[in-house]
Amino acid sequence: MSKIVIGLDIAGGDFAPNCNFEGAKLVLENLSDKIHLVLIGDENVIKTGLSSYGIDENAVSIFHAPEVIEMGDTPMRALMSKPNNSISVGLGLLKAGKIDGFASAGNTGAIFGASVVALGTVIENIRPCMMTFVPRLNNRDALMLDIGASADSKPENLYQFAMLGHTFYKYIMNVENPKTGLINIGEEPEKGNEVVKAAYKLMNGSTDFNFIGNVEGNELFSDKADILVCNGFTGNVVLKLCEGFYKLSRHFGFSNEYLERFNYENQGGSAVLGINGAVVIGHGISNGKAIMNMVKFSAEIVENKLPWRIKEALSSNEQ
Amino acid sequence: MSKIVIGLDIAGGDFAPNCNFEGAKLVLENLSDKIHLVLIGDENVIKTGLSSYGIDENAVSIFHAPEVIEMGDTPMRALMSKPNNSISVGLGLLKAGKIDGFASAGNTGAIFGASVVALGTVIENIRPCMMTFVPRLNNRDALMLDIGASADSKPENLYQFAMLGHTFYKYIMNVENPKTGLINIGEEPEKGNEVVKAAYKLMNGSTDFNFIGNVEGNELFSDKADILVCNGFTGNVVLKLCEGFYKLSRHFGFSNEYLERFNYENQGGSAVLGINGAVVIGHGISNGKAIMNMVKFSAEIVENKLPWRIKEALSSNEQ
Repeated sequence: MSKIVIGLDIAGGDFAPNCNFEGAKLVLENLSDKIHLVLIGDENVIKTGLSSYGIDENAVSIFHAPEVIEMGDTPMRALMSKPNNSISVGLGLLKAGKIDGFASAGNTGAIFGASVVALGTVIENIRPCMMTFVPRLNNRDALMLDIGASADSKPENLYQFAMLGHTFYKYIMNVENPKTGLINIGEEPEKGNEVVKAAYKLMNGSTDFNFIGNVEGNELFSDKADILVCNGFTGNVVLKLCEGFYKLSRHFGFSNEYLERFNYENQGGSAVLGINGAVVIGHGISNGKAIMNMVKFSAEIVENKLPWRIKEALSSNEQ
Repeated sequence: MSKIVIGLDIAGGDFAPNCNFEGAKLVLENLSDKIHLVLIGDENVIKTGLSSYGIDENAVSIFHAPEVIEMGDTPMRALMSKPNNSISVGLGLLKAGKIDGFASAGNTGAIFGASVVALGTVIENIRPCMMTFVPRLNNRDALMLDIGASADSKPENLYQFAMLGHTFYKYIMNVENPKTGLINIGEEPEKGNEVVKAAYKLMNGSTDFNFIGNVEGNELFSDKADILVCNGFTGNVVLKLCEGFYKLSRHFGFSNEYLERFNYENQGGSAVLGINGAVVIGHGISNGKAIMNMVKFSAEIVENKLPWRIKEALSSNEQ
């Protein structure tokens, strides 16, 4: 079997480029039977980095992209003024089929926006979104989406997030008929804001996924739902609050296997769902381990043909 | 100094009436120098309860209200079909000045709705809201509002929540110029959904409170803001997620003084802000300790003339 080729943005992350060399080294040590890395960024920076991290140049590919989008840059402005930035170059390689997936811990807005523009959406009327994992106490992680790609969502968007989530959970988590819940402030269908109430009506009785109703904030860690659908505003607040709790627990020296599942290092980042390609965005503060897991997660998405599965699911729904 | 008279709804709570007798007993044991209780509910139930809990009938007052609004009742329907329910009777006593404050762990929607109707809002154009405390690591609790009184909020509502929160924090927490933040998904003014972006513009530079900008989910436990403004949907999800985390920590046997501040038993419930009267709603699962703290919190609100202070602050803003 040929290896999965993942493009890694060397310029991405608060601690770039070093975090990416550390990550690349871990990928080579742990996943080289399965993954081939293409390092994307300034060639000189890459060669110097490989040498100082003791990585054999022949073990990876290098693709030159001299410009850098900084973490604080305004996404669209930066993408336009720096056409040879590592994100755009990486997405170009993905579109051209030179790599199978692209992974970056860089500027989230820039990666998300450029992905949608460069690769296109799987169907015409869809708003792509981003996902995260929510550790459940007695079960594997739940999937939550959207986590901030859009701040405002219409009921139809939430319905599509449910379809994206269903397909993700089926093919990546290998659960045949996962339970989809709507994050809300009460159990009853008539609870919530106008958008969520309308989304409930759309989702209830759907044959596209297995809708189990509303899920409240204190139920996210339970087995109630495998997929947690919400608008990007709510999802982002929940995601960051979980980070806050994880930090608190570390602060107090509380630690166990379950809590470690909240650690971003182990989560692999957030896949962009609804576009024609495998793109994973890592946490800005990624260290080497987080970068390795981001690359690994990208490869899982490629291996399970997720973008193609999603296109298939949503295209059949359109007809 | 005369005692503060608090009306306690005997029929309120999942474990009513017993939780309320337990709570009343704790109030008598710990706070009787300051608080006089009026127990509101079915007279026979109250007399039987007092006797079986060994409470002297002469230590409290009793006000007969034979009907009960159940936790699962549809609020408005129940309020109309049961005019002699303990909530409406209690609010009637409050309006008539027979009690100084009203506390109930009953049906939240019914208490909130009946409070607004019976007591009226402090100014004409205001949406009352509910609050909770968010424990901060290195400081006293932050105040978060709204936590679910309204699921949809306009920018003007969020602005008013900030004024309510500022007044609360100034007079209840005794902080002269507390910092007000807006819960959002990024630090920059242009981040967030349309409502939050518009609210930021309204709040920025306000002389009604000390606006310090956006606060993200992972910053709620930090010192960044004393007052956390959000719509009721977001606030409710955050509140319940905090409950979920507290439960997780208990599940794992993690415990310390800080974590105990997340325990609803110690928080005293949620005050209804923006109405002409001191009303506190307790958690449905309240036990005796939680009921005592709910009564204590009600008395603090009365003692610090909070509804009147809020009316003053908002009325001067109207002119």
